[in-house]
Amino acid sequence: MRLRNIPGSREVIADSSFCIHDEKAAKGRWNTEIFSNDHPMEIEIGMGKGQFILAKAQAYPERNFVGIEKFSSVLLRGIQKMEELEAEGTAPSNLRFIRMEAEYITDVFSPGEVSRIYLNFSDPWPKDRHAKRRLPSKEFLARYEQILIPDGTLEFKTDNQDLFSFALQEADLAGWKKLAVTRDLHHDLVLMEGNIMTEYESKFSALGNPICKLILQRP
Amino acid sequence: MRLRNIPGSREVIADSSFCIHDEKAAKGRWNTEIFSNDHPMEIEIGMGKGQFILAKAQAYPERNFVGIEKFSSVLLRGIQKMEELEAEGTAPSNLRFIRMEAEYITDVFSPGEVSRIYLNFSDPWPKDRHAKRRLPSKEFLARYEQILIPDGTLEFKTDNQDLFSFALQEADLAGWKKLAVTRDLHHDLVLMEGNIMTEYESKFSALGNPICKLILQRP
Repeated sequence: MRLRNIPGSREVIADSSFCIHDEKAAKGRWNTEIFSNDHPMEIEIGMGKGQFILAKAQAYPERNFVGIEKFSSVLLRGIQKMEELEAEGTAPSNLRFIRMEAEYITDVFSPGEVSRIYLNFSDPWPKDRHAKRRLPSKEFLARYEQILIPDGTLEFKTDNQDLFSFALQEADLAGWKKLAVTRDLHHDLVLMEGNIMTEYESKFSALGNPICKLILQRP
Repeated sequence: MRLRNIPGSREVIADSSFCIHDEKAAKGRWNTEIFSNDHPMEIEIGMGKGQFILAKAQAYPERNFVGIEKFSSVLLRGIQKMEELEAEGTAPSNLRFIRMEAEYITDVFSPGEVSRIYLNFSDPWPKDRHAKRRLPSKEFLARYEQILIPDGTLEFKTDNQDLFSFALQEADLAGWKKLAVTRDLHHDLVLMEGNIMTEYESKFSALGNPICKLILQRP
């Protein structure tokens, strides 16, 4: 994603009621204080402009959703979309955003607080020395394992074949179970049902790039 | 399903613009004349009151849907629901109903006109001599094969274990490929995503009955 600095985006985020500002204080209190229900919680790490997680929140009102994004300039677009929906009276009440770096997620979610994690078109970090920064790396899987419920899952989509192969290897190393694997999601008649497209996915699949998808279950 | 005769239901069906009345004349013309688009068509055989196929039509506006039901009294409920939506201006334009017996489907759909067939909680016809009447029987699979596109699929849900075992056997006999099989759909983290519940499914799963699901691809 090409990123522009958008002046004032940090201020919009700071003022938005759709964003959690003191995310460490929310740890262990997502159900009781943030959403005030006992629904399962699903998070997307690297939500970008939020098209995917917003559609999920609309499609599954009986789940809670949290979108995490480190870049203010794209998170801003998610907030603006929620403000438009709020003006129409249709903003989903089961969605919140956090501006933060993914590596701190264990400071924000308690063990067993998350039922599913979505990674969509994550940064490939192609240099070997940056492998630990890749969101499906074994270092990140160890963090996800800490916050997921016992049968919790991770769903990963990408059009980057190398990153996908890396994710498969890391899943094996970390002992995660593969529930589903495809290197051509858009021709998979089972996995496509209920598929929600991300911004990247629409763009890349229109260009003819196959989309890979992996569903993992924690050890 | 307990069926009551509802006086006047045949007249309501005959007057409804949501129903196709001369279904044999529609054969080969579903895209060109009925829906006036080139979207893929999916049909549900035994739609009952139509909760499932209506939700599908709403969720997938870029597909066409046809619900088939032999009993006027339940089809009536589907029509009434569409009329309510029409009054609100939200009736989906991609859904039609037919009152007919399933065995005549090859008179109504041309080869390759249907991309997917749904069978939900079909009548088990428990007596051996009625096996040919079961909707997942090899006799019916042969009919489905005639109307489906080359990679077309059949999705079957039931809580009847015997009927499910029968469907698996018949699929083998008829050479259909199993894309997915589960005897506990509601605990299947892959197949549940995007699952749309039928009236029966809500009721039976609330009673603790496991739901079976099978996805087949035609030979």
